[in-house]
Amino acid sequence: MTTDLQKTDRSRLRRSHNRGHFDRHTVNAILDAQPMCTVGYVIDGKPYVTPTLQWREGNTVYWHGSSASRALKNSRDAEVCLSVAILDGFVMARSGMHHSLNTRSVTLFGTARQVSHEEKEEKLCNFINHLFPGRSEILRPNSEQERKATMILALDIEEGSAKIRTGPPADDEEDYDLPIWAGVIPVTTTIGAPIDDPRNLDGLTAPDHVTGFKYGKN
Amino acid sequence: MTTDLQKTDRSRLRRSHNRGHFDRHTVNAILDAQPMCTVGYVIDGKPYVTPTLQWREGNTVYWHGSSASRALKNSRDAEVCLSVAILDGFVMARSGMHHSLNTRSVTLFGTARQVSHEEKEEKLCNFINHLFPGRSEILRPNSEQERKATMILALDIEEGSAKIRTGPPADDEEDYDLPIWAGVIPVTTTIGAPIDDPRNLDGLTAPDHVTGFKYGKN
Repeated sequence: MTTDLQKTDRSRLRRSHNRGHFDRHTVNAILDAQPMCTVGYVIDGKPYVTPTLQWREGNTVYWHGSSASRALKNSRDAEVCLSVAILDGFVMARSGMHHSLNTRSVTLFGTARQVSHEEKEEKLCNFINHLFPGRSEILRPNSEQERKATMILALDIEEGSAKIRTGPPADDEEDYDLPIWAGVIPVTTTIGAPIDDPRNLDGLTAPDHVTGFKYGKN
Repeated sequence: MTTDLQKTDRSRLRRSHNRGHFDRHTVNAILDAQPMCTVGYVIDGKPYVTPTLQWREGNTVYWHGSSASRALKNSRDAEVCLSVAILDGFVMARSGMHHSLNTRSVTLFGTARQVSHEEKEEKLCNFINHLFPGRSEILRPNSEQERKATMILALDIEEGSAKIRTGPPADDEEDYDLPIWAGVIPVTTTIGAPIDDPRNLDGLTAPDHVTGFKYGKN
């Protein structure tokens, strides 16, 4: 778990090298903090991207969908690029050029493999429990038909990088004398009060994994 | 502005057709509500995705970066897929299968074109003012060198679709009798109090476009 990710021609940072990170601790923390991801794949030589949820187990990241999904069928056994991005703030400088974003992001490359039918049930339960600890155990069990209708893809976290920017703007030295307000507008993800399904049975209350829900595992 | 986007083989929805939207009003509202986007492109037949900011002017969406950016150089005059996604909530059902997300997303396809050097200044000002109305006018002006170091790409909003899911879970009818809490956990983006750059000149206060900043234009 302490090894670095592969710094390859496609995973190394071309610019702002000082913002790049290849250690698993950093990469994993970002993956765990942001369940939303975007998966890029190629059909007939053309690019496609699909937003979806990802979850991590050890050194592997997973995502899932319908077995009939064009996105999944064309990502299976194919090269993919998986991106996770967290916007932490708008960085406002004294020139347009030095405006920036405070972000944490991860980009992973590799060949996606399909999780076997036999492994599906465990992975689907892990996914639910990753988001909502303990929820899988209280749900109506998955049916065999539902497992067949679901495809899960896996990508080993081997080739890729994290990129992080934090802190105030970095202006040209001579611009600091200008009477222009500069700083950061922070951005966060906020969870609202749970909304009961109008068809919930009388007397049901939201369990701890709902009332104590946290966005991301960090 | 009232025409629909092209429903092509790659832009039509394969599943959940009832969640698809092709009218510009819907597509534009989502683009305007979420400045973060992911752009997919292809290098040597392999997929790459890059998170960045986008802004819309009329029927065109723009994004920018360094003229040396691999992402931009390989997207210019090439097929791209641009995705914007807003997570509105986690939809928690009585079975794992019917868990879902309330989301608004847009996927656009087409060939990205480079904005000419002569048009750059106007577009860069529009970008700043799109996020922070009036800020462009108070900044230190861009230099010719900065304009040369910046590439702006444009994609006409012609082929693509929006996808929206709202509301409570949609469980199998027989599952509504189960004593399982179901509902929605809302997710929103929240703006924090602006953080002054420690190097701001004495007495400078945050202007209206900072104190009144709203995430997205809607």
